[in-house]
Amino acid sequence: MNCLSPSILSADFANLGDQIRQLDEAGAQYVHIDVMDGSFVPNISFAFPVIKSIRGLTDRMFDVHLMIDEPIRFIDQFADAGADIITVHAEACKHLDRTIEAIKERGILAGVALNPATPLSAIEYVLPKVDMVLIMTVNPGFGGQKLIPYTIDKVADLKKMIEKTGTKADIEVDGGINLENCTKLMDAGANIIVAGNAVFSGEIGENVCRFLDILNG
Amino acid sequence: MNCLSPSILSADFANLGDQIRQLDEAGAQYVHIDVMDGSFVPNISFAFPVIKSIRGLTDRMFDVHLMIDEPIRFIDQFADAGADIITVHAEACKHLDRTIEAIKERGILAGVALNPATPLSAIEYVLPKVDMVLIMTVNPGFGGQKLIPYTIDKVADLKKMIEKTGTKADIEVDGGINLENCTKLMDAGANIIVAGNAVFSGEIGENVCRFLDILNG
Amino acid sequence: MNCLSPSILSADFANLGDQIRQLDEAGAQYVHIDVMDGSFVPNISFAFPVIKSIRGLTDRMFDVHLMIDEPIRFIDQFADAGADIITVHAEACKHLDRTIEAIKERGILAGVALNPATPLSAIEYVLPKVDMVLIMTVNPGFGGQKLIPYTIDKVADLKKMIEKTGTKADIEVDGGINLENCTKLMDAGANIIVAGNAVFSGEIGENVCRFLDILNG
Amino acid sequence: MNCLSPSILSADFANLGDQIRQLDEAGAQYVHIDVMDGSFVPNISFAFPVIKSIRGLTDRMFDVHLMIDEPIRFIDQFADAGADIITVHAEACKHLDRTIEAIKERGILAGVALNPATPLSAIEYVLPKVDMVLIMTVNPGFGGQKLIPYTIDKVADLKKMIEKTGTKADIEVDGGINLENCTKLMDAGANIIVAGNAVFSGEIGENVCRFLDILNG
Amino acid sequence: MNCLSPSILSADFANLGDQIRQLDEAGAQYVHIDVMDGSFVPNISFAFPVIKSIRGLTDRMFDVHLMIDEPIRFIDQFADAGADIITVHAEACKHLDRTIEAIKERGILAGVALNPATPLSAIEYVLPKVDMVLIMTVNPGFGGQKLIPYTIDKVADLKKMIEKTGTKADIEVDGGINLENCTKLMDAGANIIVAGNAVFSGEIGENVCRFLDILNG
Amino acid sequence: MNCLSPSILSADFANLGDQIRQLDEAGAQYVHIDVMDGSFVPNISFAFPVIKSIRGLTDRMFDVHLMIDEPIRFIDQFADAGADIITVHAEACKHLDRTIEAIKERGILAGVALNPATPLSAIEYVLPKVDMVLIMTVNPGFGGQKLIPYTIDKVADLKKMIEKTGTKADIEVDGGINLENCTKLMDAGANIIVAGNAVFSGEIGENVCRFLDILNG
Repeated sequence: MNCLSPSILSADFANLGDQIRQLDEAGAQYVHIDVMDGSFVPNISFAFPVIKSIRGLTDRMFDVHLMIDEPIRFIDQFADAGADIITVHAEACKHLDRTIEAIKERGILAGVALNPATPLSAIEYVLPKVDMVLIMTVNPGFGGQKLIPYTIDKVADLKKMIEKTGTKADIEVDGGINLENCTKLMDAGANIIVAGNAVFSGEIGENVCRFLDILNG
Repeated sequence: MNCLSPSILSADFANLGDQIRQLDEAGAQYVHIDVMDGSFVPNISFAFPVIKSIRGLTDRMFDVHLMIDEPIRFIDQFADAGADIITVHAEACKHLDRTIEAIKERGILAGVALNPATPLSAIEYVLPKVDMVLIMTVNPGFGGQKLIPYTIDKVADLKKMIEKTGTKADIEVDGGINLENCTKLMDAGANIIVAGNAVFSGEIGENVCRFLDILNG
Repeated sequence: MNCLSPSILSADFANLGDQIRQLDEAGAQYVHIDVMDGSFVPNISFAFPVIKSIRGLTDRMFDVHLMIDEPIRFIDQFADAGADIITVHAEACKHLDRTIEAIKERGILAGVALNPATPLSAIEYVLPKVDMVLIMTVNPGFGGQKLIPYTIDKVADLKKMIEKTGTKADIEVDGGINLENCTKLMDAGANIIVAGNAVFSGEIGENVCRFLDILNG
Repeated sequence: MNCLSPSILSADFANLGDQIRQLDEAGAQYVHIDVMDGSFVPNISFAFPVIKSIRGLTDRMFDVHLMIDEPIRFIDQFADAGADIITVHAEACKHLDRTIEAIKERGILAGVALNPATPLSAIEYVLPKVDMVLIMTVNPGFGGQKLIPYTIDKVADLKKMIEKTGTKADIEVDGGINLENCTKLMDAGANIIVAGNAVFSGEIGENVCRFLDILNG
Repeated sequence: MNCLSPSILSADFANLGDQIRQLDEAGAQYVHIDVMDGSFVPNISFAFPVIKSIRGLTDRMFDVHLMIDEPIRFIDQFADAGADIITVHAEACKHLDRTIEAIKERGILAGVALNPATPLSAIEYVLPKVDMVLIMTVNPGFGGQKLIPYTIDKVADLKKMIEKTGTKADIEVDGGINLENCTKLMDAGANIIVAGNAVFSGEIGENVCRFLDILNG
Repeated sequence: MNCLSPSILSADFANLGDQIRQLDEAGAQYVHIDVMDGSFVPNISFAFPVIKSIRGLTDRMFDVHLMIDEPIRFIDQFADAGADIITVHAEACKHLDRTIEAIKERGILAGVALNPATPLSAIEYVLPKVDMVLIMTVNPGFGGQKLIPYTIDKVADLKKMIEKTGTKADIEVDGGINLENCTKLMDAGANIIVAGNAVFSGEIGENVCRFLDILNG
């Protein structure tokens, strides 16, 4: 089954509780939580106070994407705040294997994200132990960007790498994804789709339903 | 007039819009916005997406306290997001005068914050050009801490320094402040009081009114 | 056509204007400008004031090689100063794709440089969008070093990678290149040759001519 | 011949001289010296004063493993202190080739270490010039960890890479190695075995002998 | 009572246990442990494995002087290793008050060290809560340096500051101290004397006795 | 005697040799060389290749102002390049006393620069050993800025501090200085005047003469 992970980076933070409930009711399986520190990426978004305030409103998977330097410093706090998946950037970790282990020791799922330019060799040895690989389809840091075309090929390369090694990580894609281009990404091998503006612009429930129709149509 | 600046670090982010409206209606003059980057302080809070979502809900002063390294990198974005005051930490700025100038060039108020241990000599030369000095009464990074007693003396020292130099910066205090201890801080010279849990625990409107009674009673 | 890019790191800065004019008149197609920040490399060379002073003296391509950390901070300033090509080190960029895009948005050419030890996989996904790849043939930071022999094989590997992917980036080589060894580099696939001492020691115009004879002989 | 490199990270520093002599007498060919700086790895171990104090006690190879940022800053001091081999982490060096050259210029052996997750492509171009590659079989920073199984495959991959390129670097392995699992590592291609607790828990001389029996049995 | 704190930076690490016992028996009240990370100071000394190995040999005060960046990262580990006093550099702490509190929460003594050039205003507000101030009498990082004369005046300035504020921190001095100059430092106000070479060159027990005679003669 | 130190940051780098000769002939006693690294200040200027090229053209004092992080890394190279004075920023040095000593060990003069906001307490203890204090009268990093008025008071404060302590450091001022305002700075106590645009805009020799007339008129 393919899953939708709406990114609340595009939400209305004045009414976040309501918007989370709409996502839940419409059937989105994940809630994508983009944490930015102003150093790994040139933007600062939100983290603990926001996550804690909304954790009790839904049982959907909290899919926490850490666009921060050395995320190992904060793994325990994000687990305590209610993360179900924590995804770290390979480029941000001196010790990627240790960081993955720190996430798994908390009994939650571990993902690794790769910037557009980062080669797949960065995860060559840890692929068997990660639950998800997040292929960035834009440069991380901002909502509202256009998908970079070559990243679709990268998803396909990753899919082959997973099949060849007999591993089974999910493939998540994030950045510039909408109802028009998400099929291409699924065809290339992605099975978890992040969408921001395409979910939160207009009527949230309807947008989620349209995505789910395509994802599992 | 003394002013209250409720810190939304302690707010319920599921219902932030409602809580901002309650602050506004109860008469709090400022909204204190604690931005943390996980590097200058060991916590990550929230920034642009949250500020933009609530800016339209109130005309109260957005009092943005940047607990981030080299805040000059983000002055324009915080001004664009609707800050009325931007306060930077002296300890976080290689070029404090330039950072203050960058804030003032945007036509908004400029504050400088000092950690508990930082001496007042850090602002000796820029005092005449700042609109506010924020004396941290706890170590920045977390809500719910106890006020450090010696910081009350520091407020008094600052008050004397302001009087002696004939300048007129506001004195803001932040950390562990409640209905019981805020009078001491005002007696020492503070005129802008930040309160987090003491405002957001229980009934917000009533808490604001109690504070305002004390502040201008 | 193969091109010569004399590196002014070896120039006489007391008479830079004259030396630039000699390069121009002798037919060197590029002027190689080595910017070093004392952090990415253990040397500090020169940047904006120098580039601006000489920009008006020639129409030759200003080929600006940034040996600096996070070059994205300065792309606009180098474009404003008159760069025709900006080359950034893959090792110095957290977000290589974004940095390349920032260069291209200024309407100039974008290059990526690789230290001797850096594998070509670092540019695997961005190769189609770069105008030039610079293979360092010495460790960057100083003039007057000897070419590292294995880098010639690396040029050949890159040439194959470019042919295999049907892309068309130029291949520039930099470090320890002279009239004796430049043919080997061109045979391996390089088409833009940087030379420092080999151009500026002795009579500049003659040295340029000798190189050009070999490059396009 | 396979060699044992007992890691003194597990030694008794109250009686280090005696323990070094026991290693020497029992026939361990190397002494493994784990230098940690609290930044590249989250632990601080020991360095110059310790190395200098024990250098005169044995002629065995001092195999200095630098788990420190930018080790090029300290190559001369470690050579002066008596290192026979200096191994640096590829992840810690902006300029890996230059760092290797700095070691070789001192007339000693140069090694490159790789964290578990780091791909072998990181040493693709420098492999012919290094004397040793150290495959970390745990995440560096602490003694007493369990060997990560996939690193055995990585040793085998490296062995193939060495054979294919006709080079002849030694393969050292470090982390969680004991009498039970060291054969697997040698079968995969390792020829220098680091052991900490497995040597220093119990009777040192006997432990060394048991290892040597297996290594060259 | 004045105390001697022999710095084991000058010890023989091949026979550290014996040397610690000699210090103990001769009556040195403290053992000074200089931890250097290669970043705050340009030298790497030793830390956890050494401290743990010798903790059981003496009940003397382990006086741990952290010449490391952001020591708050390691306070718990040094307390666990057996530190009785932990001294941090004011220059190395973004949050000096928090760091002192972290030490005191472990039930041990907290010191603050100042580099020669650092003004006493750096500790103005925390002086009442620290147990010791360490005035560096050389630039930290190396043994065997000459005492900087102006630091004696600084000790006197600190003594006055302590008396004026009615606080009672110990004053420790460290760097270039010997039997000849230690009286001057005590006259200026120091009551804990660090000595390295002056204790460990020659016969340890005798050296300690000579110092103690002067200190409390 | 008061001295003029024309800043070549404002020179024409195409004709630097000629401009240096004009400065020399017109009687400027110093040549001010502004080195910027893009990290301590947000600009990159020039360093070694430029200094070496012009060193032979004049015997005037090369007054090298290092706006770079941790200048101790490069003291020897700047001394080798021909600096007569090296000035480092107090804000850029972890170990200010050691950095000053490193300069003096080379037999040249040592200065310390202070950003506008930095208090004079930063140099309280090293004042007796420095040859010059540079009071920045603008935020360092760019030519062409306006002098910050409060820095004139700071010069006067420094003058008093020097007189009170019976020391004899020169006072240099840098930033936004012209023929109109330089008298005020001398009146406050400055005796070495840096000027950039005010010297290099128009006829250099005449500008120098006008300054010298005022300085020693």
